[in-house]
Amino acid sequence: MKAVVYKGPREVAVEERPDPEVQAPTDAIVRITTTNICGSDLHMYEGRTSVEPGKILGHENMGIVQEVGAAVDRVRVGDRVSVPFNISCGTCRNCVRGQTSFCLRTNPVPGVDGGAYGYANMGPYDGGQAEYLRVPYADFNLLQLPPGEDHETDFTMLSDIFPTGWHGTELAGMQPGDTVAVFGAGPVGLLAAHSAMLRGAAQVFVVDKEPDRLALADKVGATPVDFSQADPVQQIADATGGTGADCGVEAVGYQAHDPTGQEHPELVLDNLVGAVRSAGGIGVVGVYRPDDPGAATEPAKHGRIGFDYGMFFSKGQHMGTGQCPVKRYNELLRDLIIAGRARPSSLVSHELPLDQAPEGYQHFDQRDDGWTKVLLHPAL
Amino acid sequence: MKAVVYKGPREVAVEERPDPEVQAPTDAIVRITTTNICGSDLHMYEGRTSVEPGKILGHENMGIVQEVGAAVDRVRVGDRVSVPFNISCGTCRNCVRGQTSFCLRTNPVPGVDGGAYGYANMGPYDGGQAEYLRVPYADFNLLQLPPGEDHETDFTMLSDIFPTGWHGTELAGMQPGDTVAVFGAGPVGLLAAHSAMLRGAAQVFVVDKEPDRLALADKVGATPVDFSQADPVQQIADATGGTGADCGVEAVGYQAHDPTGQEHPELVLDNLVGAVRSAGGIGVVGVYRPDDPGAATEPAKHGRIGFDYGMFFSKGQHMGTGQCPVKRYNELLRDLIIAGRARPSSLVSHELPLDQAPEGYQHFDQRDDGWTKVLLHPAL
Amino acid sequence: MKAVVYKGPREVAVEERPDPEVQAPTDAIVRITTTNICGSDLHMYEGRTSVEPGKILGHENMGIVQEVGAAVDRVRVGDRVSVPFNISCGTCRNCVRGQTSFCLRTNPVPGVDGGAYGYANMGPYDGGQAEYLRVPYADFNLLQLPPGEDHETDFTMLSDIFPTGWHGTELAGMQPGDTVAVFGAGPVGLLAAHSAMLRGAAQVFVVDKEPDRLALADKVGATPVDFSQADPVQQIADATGGTGADCGVEAVGYQAHDPTGQEHPELVLDNLVGAVRSAGGIGVVGVYRPDDPGAATEPAKHGRIGFDYGMFFSKGQHMGTGQCPVKRYNELLRDLIIAGRARPSSLVSHELPLDQAPEGYQHFDQRDDGWTKVLLHPAL
Amino acid sequence: MKAVVYKGPREVAVEERPDPEVQAPTDAIVRITTTNICGSDLHMYEGRTSVEPGKILGHENMGIVQEVGAAVDRVRVGDRVSVPFNISCGTCRNCVRGQTSFCLRTNPVPGVDGGAYGYANMGPYDGGQAEYLRVPYADFNLLQLPPGEDHETDFTMLSDIFPTGWHGTELAGMQPGDTVAVFGAGPVGLLAAHSAMLRGAAQVFVVDKEPDRLALADKVGATPVDFSQADPVQQIADATGGTGADCGVEAVGYQAHDPTGQEHPELVLDNLVGAVRSAGGIGVVGVYRPDDPGAATEPAKHGRIGFDYGMFFSKGQHMGTGQCPVKRYNELLRDLIIAGRARPSSLVSHELPLDQAPEGYQHFDQRDDGWTKVLLHPAL
Repeated sequence: MKAVVYKGPREVAVEERPDPEVQAPTDAIVRITTTNICGSDLHMYEGRTSVEPGKILGHENMGIVQEVGAAVDRVRVGDRVSVPFNISCGTCRNCVRGQTSFCLRTNPVPGVDGGAYGYANMGPYDGGQAEYLRVPYADFNLLQLPPGEDHETDFTMLSDIFPTGWHGTELAGMQPGDTVAVFGAGPVGLLAAHSAMLRGAAQVFVVDKEPDRLALADKVGATPVDFSQADPVQQIADATGGTGADCGVEAVGYQAHDPTGQEHPELVLDNLVGAVRSAGGIGVVGVYRPDDPGAATEPAKHGRIGFDYGMFFSKGQHMGTGQCPVKRYNELLRDLIIAGRARPSSLVSHELPLDQAPEGYQHFDQRDDGWTKVLLHPAL
Repeated sequence: MKAVVYKGPREVAVEERPDPEVQAPTDAIVRITTTNICGSDLHMYEGRTSVEPGKILGHENMGIVQEVGAAVDRVRVGDRVSVPFNISCGTCRNCVRGQTSFCLRTNPVPGVDGGAYGYANMGPYDGGQAEYLRVPYADFNLLQLPPGEDHETDFTMLSDIFPTGWHGTELAGMQPGDTVAVFGAGPVGLLAAHSAMLRGAAQVFVVDKEPDRLALADKVGATPVDFSQADPVQQIADATGGTGADCGVEAVGYQAHDPTGQEHPELVLDNLVGAVRSAGGIGVVGVYRPDDPGAATEPAKHGRIGFDYGMFFSKGQHMGTGQCPVKRYNELLRDLIIAGRARPSSLVSHELPLDQAPEGYQHFDQRDDGWTKVLLHPAL
Repeated sequence: MKAVVYKGPREVAVEERPDPEVQAPTDAIVRITTTNICGSDLHMYEGRTSVEPGKILGHENMGIVQEVGAAVDRVRVGDRVSVPFNISCGTCRNCVRGQTSFCLRTNPVPGVDGGAYGYANMGPYDGGQAEYLRVPYADFNLLQLPPGEDHETDFTMLSDIFPTGWHGTELAGMQPGDTVAVFGAGPVGLLAAHSAMLRGAAQVFVVDKEPDRLALADKVGATPVDFSQADPVQQIADATGGTGADCGVEAVGYQAHDPTGQEHPELVLDNLVGAVRSAGGIGVVGVYRPDDPGAATEPAKHGRIGFDYGMFFSKGQHMGTGQCPVKRYNELLRDLIIAGRARPSSLVSHELPLDQAPEGYQHFDQRDDGWTKVLLHPAL
Repeated sequence: MKAVVYKGPREVAVEERPDPEVQAPTDAIVRITTTNICGSDLHMYEGRTSVEPGKILGHENMGIVQEVGAAVDRVRVGDRVSVPFNISCGTCRNCVRGQTSFCLRTNPVPGVDGGAYGYANMGPYDGGQAEYLRVPYADFNLLQLPPGEDHETDFTMLSDIFPTGWHGTELAGMQPGDTVAVFGAGPVGLLAAHSAMLRGAAQVFVVDKEPDRLALADKVGATPVDFSQADPVQQIADATGGTGADCGVEAVGYQAHDPTGQEHPELVLDNLVGAVRSAGGIGVVGVYRPDDPGAATEPAKHGRIGFDYGMFFSKGQHMGTGQCPVKRYNELLRDLIIAGRARPSSLVSHELPLDQAPEGYQHFDQRDDGWTKVLLHPAL
């Protein structure tokens, strides 16, 4: 089969690889119909992770079940499915409690809980930017979708970024009627804003500086805040009679930049502490790493982020973090898509054949104007 | 009346002051029977806050209602009451939601939500280390106690540290059956451990290095962990089969010291991130401040605490912080005391007349052996 | 002042009464701008309660603060306010926990918790279908609104039926993505459906038999189910692939009728048990009474409702009931109205001067076609 | 192997049966070390269910894993395990949400969700009152225990009644500090009381009339209430200053009897509505059935229970019901047993060899004095 393979910093190639096979009776093989390039793929693409060359990338996958192992009795061959990016066993303590992003059994890396497809540090699993994908514990992991081809570009958001955006609002403790501040208008931030609206937010601010992204924020019903024009904390304070937002979502991560383009890993956390009211919550789904060899300062190289903690405590705020347990939300989000209430595909900018993955990576990595979200279709 | 007055760094004096009077129809005057010295009084005593000389100290107060304003119709003269350290209006958005530690109306200091008695930065209110105390919004703030003198040394813990310890377990998201790691065996840490046991913890670790405090931890049913003997993260990992605690409580604050006695404000947060399992929670009731002129480093002077945030995110942990909304817990804790199930007085070491407050402050501040918790009785 | 007074079964009159006065320092007087006739006013109007002749009716009130007592320091004269139908003290155990509909202090009737304006069995308080209304504990009870006259017909729903509809979804344990079955397309049922949509329901069924009401259900985005055409349980099962709704709301009460017009107090509960899936929740905001002299059977006269309890248990369902604590929701709903996201006024059918209250009662009681919701304006 | 077989009303026999075999790759075979007779076995024993003669009884099982299917990779041969009474697939919508008692896939009976071993109406599964038991979806269902024989009589309560008692307090919405009223001092009621104490109840009332059971209630720290001496609602009101309990647990079920021995299925629900305060919760784990051919009245034959619903609504109470999802609680309860904090074995009265099962059933069914809880050991 054809697959997108990581070769080294800023280099991916489409190569021929052996088709995956059922290895355990709980496995399924999925024929990929759509697989997306994710912002977190860029951390690997840019060489700022420990991912090994030769790995097939891709953790945002959907397709048709091609084959199942002997123990698979819920999912059937021919089912159209979304594949959560988390690989979870379904029976460990964390999985049973709904913490599938911290499965205790699928990642052999010592001290790291949680497996994923085609991802640095999250187990020996190949990704799905390919024609086929092996899915462990298929009955637990796969989400069934209505047959056919409807909503393909919406459903493809169910494997990662739509649940991840929703998770941001959940970690923030968002309640209906809240005013929500989302930092970052990339795909996750935009879908966090979309999620907040779906859950009954009164008002959602989305903070970024790219005009095309701020325009998309407006399209999902949010209020764009351009941080290159003025201090976003002050803008949000002014728009809320001085009280600040009820809660906030971090959708940027450790590679945050100030308006001049300089990297400041603590910048967005500082802004959130300032923009959210006392006793409010902050949900962090932008990625932070325990080690970052490419960081500018010594503490940041070791994951130490010296944000405004004293103010965080004085305001009595709370903060939830971490990768999204996709399975907790993908069913409800699927149902909202089917009902016509959710439309996460609104941010899709490009649909390419798998062969053009290298161009997709390059443009997306350069934040080229209009390259918001790239989908790959192996059958194109 | 007699009152304990802050004179300057490491100096308090018992002075004569005018009796407080009813100023608003919602006020009450309480005759103090017991008032405690709190660990956070020491931040002021040591001169590491902006508290103004002349202020009457004391936010852990209980006594008998002496007089009420015209609008007070629930509490009556003669009622025995506990006074929560928070001064809250009962009708603002935060109070109505149970966030009485962040009352939007009782603190005139700009940008700071929440009032308190005799406390830096929390409004113009005198404290209760005195014969009498004025209590605003008395019907909302006062907790009624059974008449008489029973349980006086238990009930006096209801104004701050018992609810604060309990709040630590709540902010950590503690569930029955959990293994809980409490850092700090001062009064708040010990009552966090007592709280965790009352709420059905399977096991509670209490980390400290003072033998008398570790002995008290053992007395409340917890497992003492001496961090001067070995890395506490490793000790807890070893005792839990490598998984770590289910959740943790920070009861130390920004003046944390390593075994050699050097101050490291990020030390306890680092330990908690390491000691708590993936997807676990951390409740922070030890105090951190947005500015600390006495801090050792420039970032710490501005409340920037560069703890191990990348690992915190990678483990998907969550963290709640802030001063305790006493009213949320003091009624249930009172009922557990009356039922004979809770006994927070176990850590009381000294009961002194008000006149001996200066000696009480001095010994408690020096962590003199056995000076765990000091109670002052104006009538002695 | 002019006021709508209950004279006896099916008779109300507009009479001259003395203006209300501040009686306690915590009181306010509100000049009524809008006051609605509620479905539960009809229980009294029809003589099926113990309400005493001479009482001023009306518990859905809004207006302008005319005067305040000496202890009122949050609300100011001139504020535009919504008055929750519950009269709550703000300091008893239930109020502090947000259970303002079960205030332990404002209702002197033995064994009944919770006060209300102009309502049978809920204390000696006159209602607000009048020019002025006395509001006890004004700082706690009154919700401030933006000045002016905007959204008057939306805001007037904040005193009772919009929060009550929302409460139905809350008692049912509704989650985003749920399919919700609402029984009853009266004002409360319609606003329960509107609430469910605002909170992210995937689909909402509204069951009734009146074409005008079913048309309004369609208007708020719900799926109308006409129970006079076929068994509603079967209709909902068919529409959900046999599984039933995820949760349901009872918005009818004890005066439920079958398609032939016969009263069956257990009918709607039976339907909900049948229509909701296993482990699902049911929120009951339709009124049931401990005694109902007008009931058809002996058990029903004593509030005994022999619904399908064995099936309820076998399906492991849960059920929440009771009058709505308006204060828990009115602020968030106000903010959704201001943001343009909620529009509860869509069901208003008539706006009358106070003098025409008798006609309003008569038509609404007869369920005359199109008389969905009647508003009274004393200044018209 | 030997097995306890249902022969007909009030008749069981120990018979020779074929050993169970692995039928699916997700199965395990467990060698039973301890299996208990449950109060709900008596419903079948007494012929008040549709259970078919020939069925092996027993749903409270524990033992040692003897054999596993090819897909079982978490549990290993030789593991000591507790077997939850629910048979759940681990991958359907309800299982994933923790509602394992309402598994959508393991029970082929139309319209009934949830499977169980040896139980009427809950699927074709034989029970574990035998030497061996086949366990479907073993990786999901089995709870691992420490090796050896310690705590055998405590751990054997983890398969049903300890979690069921705990579930009662959960369904009631119990909070620490609450006063809890438990109706029924059978094994489930006693363990509900034990659970409430473990979770921090201030006081627990246990209502029954049998002196031996009331003595056991006292032993777990509860306050016995003898309903044959006086109205239990009045007794609880008197003991709580007139307010009633904060919440209550129903641990009796449809075969409730008044002090004269007459059956009244609505009696305990009435008492709970009366004994619990306004806005309080009721958890129902005593069994009610949709059809009961042996009931005394026509409505009761169809599961219609005409309890005091009007008062239930007027007090704004809520009620949770249904079979316990054992897996939600058995791990935490196991940990509390290991920590020495929980001791559910305190109510065990008899340990018999499997051969004496018929005598065990007979005495337990007759409520013979002192026959509180019977354990069967196949190896004795």
